[in-house]
Amino acid sequence: MNSRLKRISQTMIRKYHRLTLKKYRAADKLFIVEGIRSVAEVLASDWDVDAVLVQDEQLCEQFAPDIARRDVPCYQLSVKEMGLLSDTVTSQGIVSIVRTGRQPDYDEFLMRKGPQMIVALDSVADPGNVGTIIRTCDWFGADAVLLDETTVELFNPKVIRSAMGSVFHLPVFTDIGLASALTKAKERGFTVVTTVMHGGKSPEEFVFPSRTVLVLGSEAHGVSRDAGQLAGERMTIPRYGKAESLNVAIACGIILAKRNERGRRG
Amino acid sequence: MNSRLKRISQTMIRKYHRLTLKKYRAADKLFIVEGIRSVAEVLASDWDVDAVLVQDEQLCEQFAPDIARRDVPCYQLSVKEMGLLSDTVTSQGIVSIVRTGRQPDYDEFLMRKGPQMIVALDSVADPGNVGTIIRTCDWFGADAVLLDETTVELFNPKVIRSAMGSVFHLPVFTDIGLASALTKAKERGFTVVTTVMHGGKSPEEFVFPSRTVLVLGSEAHGVSRDAGQLAGERMTIPRYGKAESLNVAIACGIILAKRNERGRRG
Repeated sequence: MNSRLKRISQTMIRKYHRLTLKKYRAADKLFIVEGIRSVAEVLASDWDVDAVLVQDEQLCEQFAPDIARRDVPCYQLSVKEMGLLSDTVTSQGIVSIVRTGRQPDYDEFLMRKGPQMIVALDSVADPGNVGTIIRTCDWFGADAVLLDETTVELFNPKVIRSAMGSVFHLPVFTDIGLASALTKAKERGFTVVTTVMHGGKSPEEFVFPSRTVLVLGSEAHGVSRDAGQLAGERMTIPRYGKAESLNVAIACGIILAKRNERGRRG
Repeated sequence: MNSRLKRISQTMIRKYHRLTLKKYRAADKLFIVEGIRSVAEVLASDWDVDAVLVQDEQLCEQFAPDIARRDVPCYQLSVKEMGLLSDTVTSQGIVSIVRTGRQPDYDEFLMRKGPQMIVALDSVADPGNVGTIIRTCDWFGADAVLLDETTVELFNPKVIRSAMGSVFHLPVFTDIGLASALTKAKERGFTVVTTVMHGGKSPEEFVFPSRTVLVLGSEAHGVSRDAGQLAGERMTIPRYGKAESLNVAIACGIILAKRNERGRRG
């Protein structure tokens, strides 16, 4: 028996269970991170971890060095108790409780010099898409992600799960008004780039500005008028078939892959 | 009141409700198509539509020309009855019941001459990814999709929903053993291309064979050994950041976008 492993109390279960709702995540400044990989990533990051909760003590052993180094309590709970915290049908039997408020300061970020790529989401409602976009930005080395105030909440369990640990790898700015964020970025030498269904430059012919904010909107409505008015460049991903729209995360991946290609050419 | 609109019977509700389970979809050779756009797409296609079911008779009016032309019965049901058929939290109040078995013959497809791009999925379990891949293949004008027998079922409601009507635009072959499918394709002049984490050609340097089967595997396990052994070419999408993996639908989008780019260059 691992000496660090304690039995969880019913009070704690109740305290953590309410984090499945957005209003309590905001009030308590805590959120749930689920699954082996994501827990490993948050323990390796500089985010504050309140607790690690496992069904099987084996999982606590697996993370023993990180848990000891960070002095994080590890609690054991039953399958049924885990079900109160887990967002998945087949839980991996491990979650951690993490403090929000680790997000960096947007204004400070804009002061950084040199090439920067920010991906800004404008009213993207699907949490799976938002998480996948954060993971894709991480894969392609984008410098930051911005979720405007009308985009789904970063700490939504489905966002965190589909980001697969990438929220702990790069800055994600949240709850920002898009018009103000884009205006500030322009003042710091960024070009605002939006995607449009027709009439923009193709990714192939597009020359990426050194400092770019790429604004991606919802599949149904595109980017908002504010973003459109602040845009210095417009891109269109050419369609060859009959689909009415392209998934927003896929558009993101295609554009970031193309930017890296150009970067490597010099 | 639309003269075509009838009240649904409890027997029919039971008959259609069981289509939410895979075994009954297979037994009855019927599946559920949900939402305004997808119902519009299936009515415009050559798939056999058994019935259109609406909450609000307005929706039946909206599709009146198609419903009349195809002589499809339109039934009205209650919000609660719709809930028995719908896979979404906020239903659009319309579903249609469609006959399976419209899938084309794979061997016949392989006999087609000229450039062809088939995207084959190897044990892709997530229905949202599979539907998004079908939609992406449609957008970029791939010629067909193949779901191997270990990939999630095409008629799963989440696959149909995330494909947003694209299953009615291009051939999707199903329930095929991957090794046999790839062997047949090679005999007809196709090159099998797989994606690998390391050591393959980048999409940028890759020269797409005129007849290609692109095999995409699960994010966790990659492509199976069979597919690996039959591969004539291997691609790797370069990583610039710290994410452990790239979403399979995003990999698909990046590769198809790149192939079209090349195609346009000549």
